[in-house]
Amino acid sequence: MKLHILGCYAATPRTLTNPTSQVLEIRDHMFLIDCGEGTQVQLRINRIKFSRINHIFISHLHGDHFFGLPGLISTFRLLGRDKELHIYAPKGIKEAITLLLKLGDSWTNYPLVFHELTSKEPQVIYEDDKVTVETIPLNHRVFTNGFLFKEKLRERKLNINAVAQYKIDKCYFQSIKNGKDIILDDGKIIPNKVLTFDPAAPKGYAFCSDTGYFPDIIPQIQKVDTLYHESTFLESEAHLASKTKHATAKEAAKIAKKADVGLLILGHYSTRYRSLDLFKEEAMEIFNRVALAEDGKVFEF
Amino acid sequence: MKLHILGCYAATPRTLTNPTSQVLEIRDHMFLIDCGEGTQVQLRINRIKFSRINHIFISHLHGDHFFGLPGLISTFRLLGRDKELHIYAPKGIKEAITLLLKLGDSWTNYPLVFHELTSKEPQVIYEDDKVTVETIPLNHRVFTNGFLFKEKLRERKLNINAVAQYKIDKCYFQSIKNGKDIILDDGKIIPNKVLTFDPAAPKGYAFCSDTGYFPDIIPQIQKVDTLYHESTFLESEAHLASKTKHATAKEAAKIAKKADVGLLILGHYSTRYRSLDLFKEEAMEIFNRVALAEDGKVFEF
Repeated sequence: MKLHILGCYAATPRTLTNPTSQVLEIRDHMFLIDCGEGTQVQLRINRIKFSRINHIFISHLHGDHFFGLPGLISTFRLLGRDKELHIYAPKGIKEAITLLLKLGDSWTNYPLVFHELTSKEPQVIYEDDKVTVETIPLNHRVFTNGFLFKEKLRERKLNINAVAQYKIDKCYFQSIKNGKDIILDDGKIIPNKVLTFDPAAPKGYAFCSDTGYFPDIIPQIQKVDTLYHESTFLESEAHLASKTKHATAKEAAKIAKKADVGLLILGHYSTRYRSLDLFKEEAMEIFNRVALAEDGKVFEF
Repeated sequence: MKLHILGCYAATPRTLTNPTSQVLEIRDHMFLIDCGEGTQVQLRINRIKFSRINHIFISHLHGDHFFGLPGLISTFRLLGRDKELHIYAPKGIKEAITLLLKLGDSWTNYPLVFHELTSKEPQVIYEDDKVTVETIPLNHRVFTNGFLFKEKLRERKLNINAVAQYKIDKCYFQSIKNGKDIILDDGKIIPNKVLTFDPAAPKGYAFCSDTGYFPDIIPQIQKVDTLYHESTFLESEAHLASKTKHATAKEAAKIAKKADVGLLILGHYSTRYRSLDLFKEEAMEIFNRVALAEDGKVFEF
């Protein structure tokens, strides 16, 4: 898995920082998560091919998380896209995009498929043979979901030496990887565990932004490899965090600690602070596996 | 008058170029003309104070001319704006902005005044004691207006030597500037033209984008000091220009020549060409006062 941070700052725009947007590379997918204004330019800067994006997940309908979407949808048309584009977002997104297209007497020459979200319970919103995506209901001023991206268990790894030793024909390899035992011509049964190794443990990534401190999410994100949790403020502005339903770095760390995640990535920073290091320092008083999101940074896990 | 080009490229986004947006400084106003995605960042980069923008003119509702508007409106709130903001744009803009604010359970803490345009005839849409703004109906795929910004005639300039010679008291200066003659204590009449100089000729700026070749606009923009006319294509792509209702550089120059404008500024370039100089070369075959818009460039006139 590879996480490209396109933008990780809160709403107030600045010359050199961008509102929320990320691309998660996971098992051949390039999932776009949130789409603040300017995302299409950030995709270019980060050299991510537009044609590889087929699924866009929008956490909530505040401008700094989706005002880049209409432009991206228009650009896909200009670039001659014909593949389906799937958009997972709170109810209302379809009305908004449809209106904006209609006002410009415009259209898409590709199927634009809206998956409007309304449930306040976690739900699987995407699934194929390799990954699942679930909503993580969050606690913000408007209906907001985080997203939990999970790999499925991969097929077992072939033990090349073992299959050679038993002279097993290639045509059986796929069923061996699927977990089957093998019966040799002499009737001897070779158990699958002799012929294979365990696959790598499936990985998970949880994106949680925007949200106030919300321990309800802990069971769902328990032991996830990587958690991106917003930390708009420091504890010195806890009153603002509480009022605006955002989290402090300390609160993000508390969630990370209780959920025992592999790595906490902080982001969605208010631009009032002189240094991002302050966020990391505050979080590390609670939890010691902390990284800072920065625009253009890539995490591999 | 000072014209700041924030963005002057057609819709397809690139890393280093921006869609249409300009700021015209005219007699204490900072008029924002069009507002493509990323305009708020371009305002920052060009060091234009957000608080000085009170009037926004949108030519038409294609995304590359207004997808930056919702974000700018939101940002004005974050920055604590309380002054009125006036938006002049085709009908539909109010519904779009209202819906986007509603979806985010958001609002503006300043009066947001929409002036929705529907007329296919030129009309004065803004007027005060110093300037007027008229629509210039254009010929594009959707309802589109250019805008003609005109200074009003300034007051006459005081001839300091003449008023000193006749020992005229300061308290008469304003009425002299307004054109009045003066009667001295001895009954002698001093005609205004002795006491004043003609004011500078009022200037005008015409913004015409997006449009196909459309000579109907010529009488309205006759002898305007500066004309910004779109030139999305070169003549080699005249078939595309005609199909998409855009103009070529040559067509822009024809309009400039027939209207006998002071300066033609080209812009709204398709990104398919290797050099902007090609646009200038083509236009100068027809008309010789041609300049190229470039993002970040400032014109004074």
